[in-house]
Amino acid sequence: MGNADGVFPEAEFAARRVPVPPSRPFLDTFRANLKETFFPDDPFRQFKNESGPRRVVLGLKYFLPILDWAPTYNLSLFKADLIAGITIASLAIPQGISYAKLAYLPPILGLYSSFVPPLVYAMMGSSRDLAVGTVAVASLLIGSMLSNEVSPTEQPALYLHLAFTATFFAGLFQAALGLLRLGFIVDFLSHACIVGFMAGAATVVCLQQLKGMLGLEHFTTATDIVSVTKSVFSQVSQWRWESAVLGFCFLFFLLLTRFFSKKRPRFFWISAAAPLTSVILGSVLVYLTHAENHGVQVIGYLKKGLNPPSVTSLTFTPPYITVALKTGIITGVIALAEGIAVGRSFAMFKNYNIDGNKEMIAIGTMNIVGSLTSCYLTTGPFSRSAVNYNAGCKTAMSNVVMSIAVMITLLLLTPLFHYTPLVVLSAIIIAAMLGLIDYEAAFHLWHVDKVDFCVCLGAYLGVVFGSVEIGLVIAVGISVLRVLLFIARPRTTVLGNIPNSMAYRRVDQYPSAESIPGVLILQIDAPIYFANASYLRERISRWIDEETEGFKGETTLQYLILDLGAVGSIDTSGISMLEEVKKIIDRRDIKLVLANPGSEVMKKLNSSKILETIGHEWIFLTVADAVAACNFMLHSCKPGAIQNDNTSCENVV
Amino acid sequence: MGNADGVFPEAEFAARRVPVPPSRPFLDTFRANLKETFFPDDPFRQFKNESGPRRVVLGLKYFLPILDWAPTYNLSLFKADLIAGITIASLAIPQGISYAKLAYLPPILGLYSSFVPPLVYAMMGSSRDLAVGTVAVASLLIGSMLSNEVSPTEQPALYLHLAFTATFFAGLFQAALGLLRLGFIVDFLSHACIVGFMAGAATVVCLQQLKGMLGLEHFTTATDIVSVTKSVFSQVSQWRWESAVLGFCFLFFLLLTRFFSKKRPRFFWISAAAPLTSVILGSVLVYLTHAENHGVQVIGYLKKGLNPPSVTSLTFTPPYITVALKTGIITGVIALAEGIAVGRSFAMFKNYNIDGNKEMIAIGTMNIVGSLTSCYLTTGPFSRSAVNYNAGCKTAMSNVVMSIAVMITLLLLTPLFHYTPLVVLSAIIIAAMLGLIDYEAAFHLWHVDKVDFCVCLGAYLGVVFGSVEIGLVIAVGISVLRVLLFIARPRTTVLGNIPNSMAYRRVDQYPSAESIPGVLILQIDAPIYFANASYLRERISRWIDEETEGFKGETTLQYLILDLGAVGSIDTSGISMLEEVKKIIDRRDIKLVLANPGSEVMKKLNSSKILETIGHEWIFLTVADAVAACNFMLHSCKPGAIQNDNTSCENVV
Repeated sequence: MGNADGVFPEAEFAARRVPVPPSRPFLDTFRANLKETFFPDDPFRQFKNESGPRRVVLGLKYFLPILDWAPTYNLSLFKADLIAGITIASLAIPQGISYAKLAYLPPILGLYSSFVPPLVYAMMGSSRDLAVGTVAVASLLIGSMLSNEVSPTEQPALYLHLAFTATFFAGLFQAALGLLRLGFIVDFLSHACIVGFMAGAATVVCLQQLKGMLGLEHFTTATDIVSVTKSVFSQVSQWRWESAVLGFCFLFFLLLTRFFSKKRPRFFWISAAAPLTSVILGSVLVYLTHAENHGVQVIGYLKKGLNPPSVTSLTFTPPYITVALKTGIITGVIALAEGIAVGRSFAMFKNYNIDGNKEMIAIGTMNIVGSLTSCYLTTGPFSRSAVNYNAGCKTAMSNVVMSIAVMITLLLLTPLFHYTPLVVLSAIIIAAMLGLIDYEAAFHLWHVDKVDFCVCLGAYLGVVFGSVEIGLVIAVGISVLRVLLFIARPRTTVLGNIPNSMAYRRVDQYPSAESIPGVLILQIDAPIYFANASYLRERISRWIDEETEGFKGETTLQYLILDLGAVGSIDTSGISMLEEVKKIIDRRDIKLVLANPGSEVMKKLNSSKILETIGHEWIFLTVADAVAACNFMLHSCKPGAIQNDNTSCENVV
Repeated sequence: MGNADGVFPEAEFAARRVPVPPSRPFLDTFRANLKETFFPDDPFRQFKNESGPRRVVLGLKYFLPILDWAPTYNLSLFKADLIAGITIASLAIPQGISYAKLAYLPPILGLYSSFVPPLVYAMMGSSRDLAVGTVAVASLLIGSMLSNEVSPTEQPALYLHLAFTATFFAGLFQAALGLLRLGFIVDFLSHACIVGFMAGAATVVCLQQLKGMLGLEHFTTATDIVSVTKSVFSQVSQWRWESAVLGFCFLFFLLLTRFFSKKRPRFFWISAAAPLTSVILGSVLVYLTHAENHGVQVIGYLKKGLNPPSVTSLTFTPPYITVALKTGIITGVIALAEGIAVGRSFAMFKNYNIDGNKEMIAIGTMNIVGSLTSCYLTTGPFSRSAVNYNAGCKTAMSNVVMSIAVMITLLLLTPLFHYTPLVVLSAIIIAAMLGLIDYEAAFHLWHVDKVDFCVCLGAYLGVVFGSVEIGLVIAVGISVLRVLLFIARPRTTVLGNIPNSMAYRRVDQYPSAESIPGVLILQIDAPIYFANASYLRERISRWIDEETEGFKGETTLQYLILDLGAVGSIDTSGISMLEEVKKIIDRRDIKLVLANPGSEVMKKLNSSKILETIGHEWIFLTVADAVAACNFMLHSCKPGAIQNDNTSCENVV
């Protein structure tokens, strides 16, 4: 290490030069990059050094986690799962019926969808807390996207077939993402984006419920706030007070139970049982008062029996396949994002791991199987999973219990729902949706990161004033733009020496950092790419201009040290940029010095021959080394001094 | 600094803690960010501390650089510009006529476009070497995009009006980009992308010339290689040998002169004058042999006189405005990218600066004025500017000289072009295009950066097999994907101590780096964003797994030091990630330690309260400090030892 008095012991430095990494065959690098991109979790590690049959068992266990936990399953675990399963079933039945209405589908489909998919997930899913079922946002999305093409009232059969087809494509897409290890696509829906998007969707869903609450017969198919308000207030004369009173009473009841359960977490089951209680109370009330004849709409006849097969209903013919495909992909991604986020959150609480790609395969298979058995899109909704978790579930067996409870309902109890008023279902949806508007998270975003808040707000406003797709595009667009802008406008900062240390840090962050006379140290905070190469060239020139303007005295700027420690990567435009900077400052008699380049940067500097232009001896391991070398040259190379080693005074001018 | 024997002097460390930057008002930060994004070159600096009238003068000089250089213009400069101007005029006339044919426009428009725009650029442009004129690629693009909507042979007047309108929009878009300081959009066309795109366009343009070379009457309007080959070989019987022989003779002549001029740079004028020579020779030959009656097509009648105004020709009516707008924006960006890249290259040679945003305003204004005076899209073509530079131009006056030469041609010499054979124009275009296929640059890309090579190849294949737009979309897509992938899969590497120093560097880059027992040091190489948060969480877990697997002995992993020096930014997803990592490793009795966070990261850690969870005393200025602290705790906190300072042993477990 260079000493404070400026001695520049060549031998000592030589041992600490930045090496050029040995060149590796292209295919090796390519394979390594591919592995890091698609298999960062190294799923094949467990298969190493195992025999053939053992590998098959491990492979089966990978795809069917039930094989892992079933052998050690016991009675005490089952007791816990039984209670949790019954609790979520009491929530699943009314929610399933409600959400099916949201997608303009027959209510019975909501029950079907709570029967088959949970069984599939119980075998394939790796989360112990996820409770499978339909979700409000995806239901709304399916409803609004499909009804744009086919009217659910005029062509109900075709509409139903399209819903199954869309679910099939969603499942296929989800499973394909998992199998192709492309799970990171879901990561591009940031947390901020999801918060805004969910709140927007919740607002939109609540607005849609005005139809049920006010007992309206006709309603707009658009989801934006302007159309809905117009639609509601254009038919004030059609409002039915009986319906509204009933609806708001139940809404109040539901919100009250939730409030109570939140205050006393021990009584979580009160809010969990409230929807089913509301349905029973509402049905009894209607049955006794014959309110169905006084403007209160009811569910009506529900077919008894289990899911009929729907393989033959899938529609792959040209005019409709496009809309089914589009709906499937968009709703599939949304459902996947929710399911994985929910699974991860609860896994965090209980300290186990969720494999994102494996979950995608499980959720995808569940939807493929569902689409063949008259189910529509399912995932792991937050509300139901939270109830499951609070009820003390231990394994995915709670899904099986829920599934059996739904099966019994389908076989025996469907006639009981005949008199269930729609307005109660609306109240259940609104109560669930109000819980999705996470204004505290939005406050937190504003407080911590303004750009994230913009993403969140953009998603919210896009969904509320435009449509669900527009909101999504806006949010993803802002998120990606932010990343690109970070790359396009990287920070360059001047470094100074922290007193009594060899550390060099940003002078704007550490007021005590001292600059070195005659030496300008710049740190570049991002990879050098085509998108920022010309910006960086101009910004570096400006730093030099500003630096030289200040100095009118004896020691003018002689060295520019670029700290490349934070430059993770460089492309050919970046290499040209360095070459141009070198040319520009050479003409001003300033020497370019590099500090701490990474191995990829060194490799490219070498293969592009610019390493020779800069001179390997002007590349240092640390900024401190570089400064020591510059100081040595500054103080010992007075006119007349002659040295003949590598870093001779000739190089200075 | 902590000593080697593990003493942990609290007082010394306290002075070197990482400070939380003072919170600034939101608007201040916003303004600073806005300035850095849109005004990185600080164009208002020169206006500071100036009086009102002086500011007006400076502002005029900003927009009209001619005011800067005209006052000191002298005869010797003019002599140089005169020679350069005449040389480029001799190139401009045949090239202008040829490129107009490429855009399916009347040949005279090529001459018009070399008259008005250079005059505008001479006043507003800041490059001294750019020679203004039409370019092959943009001409081809205009031709292929407009002819998709309107047939140039069936509705020539409408087609012409659309070309003017597209030029108007291109100019408006270019000037707007400059005025709105959005010049960085052009940066997203990387060098690699332009190399591939240009080569592809050159190939396509050469293929188009087969029409002229073979004297074909009918030809496909598609530009891809498959359609063109089919079109050429489906009408073998129509091939005219007279035309082909003439064409290949001139092509040979042109390539020979270029080869000669390249070998002897002093005779650059030979290759510069070759096109005009070819035109004269060809015209005389046709006139003498009456070859126009034997299958050699000629230009025919050219109207005498200067540019007629075309204000009334601009078409803003609905069915056509879309295609004009689309064509204008795409060709405008392409033309801008070429003009600015060419201007910058020559400015580099002569050591002066080009202001990208100012150039955009100049090129944009030039095209707006051009569209009103019967010109179509112009920019600074590479070939013509290179000739200008070689001919020794000194200022933009050479453009004025060229303009005057073209004016004289328009007023007096147009009848001379009556007998010019089209095949000579095709030969001129092919010769120019072959120079654009920069296979050496492609080799260089392959050698230095494989991804950049893919971008280049993608652009080339996209243009040749698809269309110009497809090539562009592929190239920009791959480029952006690369940036996003860098963010989505940042490198995390283990650091070790370089012997005899306080530096910690990547162990895979520096084989001599030594790891510290019980401490894992990880460096994260990119900003922590939503796109990589879950990847990083899993990758860090895997590093810990791999590290603990290795240690079976006494010292197991107790500290995880994250070096955040290269983390330029963090968003709320990133903050949550750190929180989760802390939770995960806390359960494994490992302590999280941060080293060298930047000011933005510190600010967000603080405002999100995670700073308190981690503990400010576990955030260090350098990795060396962090290691020293960890070592101190490892060696002095044996069971039973009790300390009461900030970094007490209680924190360890």
